[in-house]
Amino acid sequence: MDAELPVAARVRAIAPFHVMEVQTAARALEAQGRTVVHMEIGEPDFPTPEPVLEAARATLARGDIYYTSALGLPELRVAIARHYAAALGAAIDPERVIVTAGSSAALLLVMALIVDRGREILLADPGYPCNRHFVRVFEGEPVGIAVGAASSYQLTADAVERHWRAATSGVLVASPSNPTGTTVPRDEMARIAATVRARRGHLIVDEIYLGLTYGERPASVLASIDDAFVVSSFSKYFNMTGWRLGWIVAPQRYVRDLEKLAQNLFISPPTLSQRAALACFEPATLALVESRRRAFEARRDLLVPALRSLGFGVPVLPDGGFFVYADSSRFSDDSEAFCRAMLEGAGVAATPGVDFGVHRAREHVRFAYTIDEEKLEDGVERLARFLAR
Amino acid sequence: MDAELPVAARVRAIAPFHVMEVQTAARALEAQGRTVVHMEIGEPDFPTPEPVLEAARATLARGDIYYTSALGLPELRVAIARHYAAALGAAIDPERVIVTAGSSAALLLVMALIVDRGREILLADPGYPCNRHFVRVFEGEPVGIAVGAASSYQLTADAVERHWRAATSGVLVASPSNPTGTTVPRDEMARIAATVRARRGHLIVDEIYLGLTYGERPASVLASIDDAFVVSSFSKYFNMTGWRLGWIVAPQRYVRDLEKLAQNLFISPPTLSQRAALACFEPATLALVESRRRAFEARRDLLVPALRSLGFGVPVLPDGGFFVYADSSRFSDDSEAFCRAMLEGAGVAATPGVDFGVHRAREHVRFAYTIDEEKLEDGVERLARFLAR
Repeated sequence: MDAELPVAARVRAIAPFHVMEVQTAARALEAQGRTVVHMEIGEPDFPTPEPVLEAARATLARGDIYYTSALGLPELRVAIARHYAAALGAAIDPERVIVTAGSSAALLLVMALIVDRGREILLADPGYPCNRHFVRVFEGEPVGIAVGAASSYQLTADAVERHWRAATSGVLVASPSNPTGTTVPRDEMARIAATVRARRGHLIVDEIYLGLTYGERPASVLASIDDAFVVSSFSKYFNMTGWRLGWIVAPQRYVRDLEKLAQNLFISPPTLSQRAALACFEPATLALVESRRRAFEARRDLLVPALRSLGFGVPVLPDGGFFVYADSSRFSDDSEAFCRAMLEGAGVAATPGVDFGVHRAREHVRFAYTIDEEKLEDGVERLARFLAR
Repeated sequence: MDAELPVAARVRAIAPFHVMEVQTAARALEAQGRTVVHMEIGEPDFPTPEPVLEAARATLARGDIYYTSALGLPELRVAIARHYAAALGAAIDPERVIVTAGSSAALLLVMALIVDRGREILLADPGYPCNRHFVRVFEGEPVGIAVGAASSYQLTADAVERHWRAATSGVLVASPSNPTGTTVPRDEMARIAATVRARRGHLIVDEIYLGLTYGERPASVLASIDDAFVVSSFSKYFNMTGWRLGWIVAPQRYVRDLEKLAQNLFISPPTLSQRAALACFEPATLALVESRRRAFEARRDLLVPALRSLGFGVPVLPDGGFFVYADSSRFSDDSEAFCRAMLEGAGVAATPGVDFGVHRAREHVRFAYTIDEEKLEDGVERLARFLAR
């Protein structure tokens, strides 16, 4: 066997998901007969809604599962645009909607479009790790801005202004955020957009968790801003993770370039998933996913006070998604070791902060409430016993 | 509306598919009531095999369509590895198989792994346009090597040697090739591999059309070479284009890095497609796709002599895939204009050479035999009348 040949420098800059190591360790424990409460998993536990499965069955019966347009099925683009008007407070032209193979492909396309060699993109730290990696694979420089409780773990216009340099090309904001579950207030988002616009930069808004908003009705950034790239997904709110389907809403003038990139990098999004997703916007599906959203909210309302009473710091109530980013510094200054100890000692799996950046990452743990209330209560009881030792 | 902001330099370097313009023009003619013989389309006309549809139905009945491992379902990786032993002459470890969202994702991952800023990858011109674009999006330099009938429109070890420079990182060979349908002989492939190995470069072999080989039984490059990256697909041989599923067979030592990239760039390949694809390797499916392969061969044997008798140059009989790359220089020195004229005058859609590179691109047209023999005969008759005018 030859010695390893050189690979691209970017490969060293990209970290694997630590959550996968947690999952592997958790499964090893389960294989030994232990039970584990899974609070590490970043996908809804709810199965695909029945009307979506039914639409998939109807597509299989026709059997015509060929390539679609690189931009996606026209009728799905229309349906997504209508959903913005009906549920997310924004009127958008279907021509601006680009259907993608998950929000992964959406982020990949947007970054391929705007990230030039050596140019910088500003992002929140902590944040979803793939976001910075998408910048890096296209030879850009992701610049993490430390965010904390004072700004609800989100970027502010002021922070963007302070970190903007000649090399900066744009800003990515995730609202609600993974891992923090927090949202950028509408007026702050408008200030961020104005700041980015004044510097002739690009604004990308990750709204993957927007459907899962608690309290106020969700509103897309597109309700008031039309020059942002919005990235979204069928995975979380519509419980369609394995179907790999998402979308971009782009400013009209970039659609042709995004189409060209999508043709070359993906050919087209998965056809069966696209036809099935048309059923997402039927009243029965919307009623179902709304009831599931309320279930997530009830879980949050169980988990957050419980974590606080155990001694975790949760200074800002998460108002979206299904994560709690908990300050674990009272228990450990090494949250990776703490996660291993929780798993071994309590049979509770959670994700160490290191998956989400460097800023106070060793003092935080992400708990996902993608399990039912009974399991969540079991997890909390296990943690109580473990931490009382 | 603001003026357009700068996009990444790579965007200018990436061409849209000209075939899409042909298709759009063809559909416009059809909307006017004209009939069009479609010889521009790069996907099989055969629908998804019934056992694959049945496996998809069974998966829908279970309803558990969650993320899979980023490397793909373990049982599918095993099934693919077994297929290499049973049908493609190669014994490979399932651990080397990485399931991807189409061969698009496979090529994207391999290029993300090996293409460093400013480094060169050698490819045949003409060749599949996305291949050079994948190199470019990762800030590498695709170097097209002009190939012609003398080398069956394929790279040779000699050509690779002549074009290798200090900046060269590797070579991509597509066998059978899109657009030429020609194959690299096994001994020449061994020489190419030895040449690349001696220069400590990477060899990538696109075997997307390998199942559609006519004459000899297909053999993977992996039968004799274990240090190549092989990219393949369920789209063509298994008639599963819209399912977006393919795979990489990588040298073992790169699997961990590819997994890390796949986690971050894709999360996982589409789950339903993966479960459905397990049925590809059942005897009933293999018998069906083999009968379809023979149908493609019969079409080739109809089309190639007909094109030759019309005056097109087809100096090398294509022995794989479903394309004929025909020299149209007897009729025009501008194959884009010629394709427009064929569409307008004969109602025959074909793809101009410009989609596949620059070397004699204006003197070539790609005809796809992804339509049945009756339609092919109609197309040939239309061309005969058109060219006799």
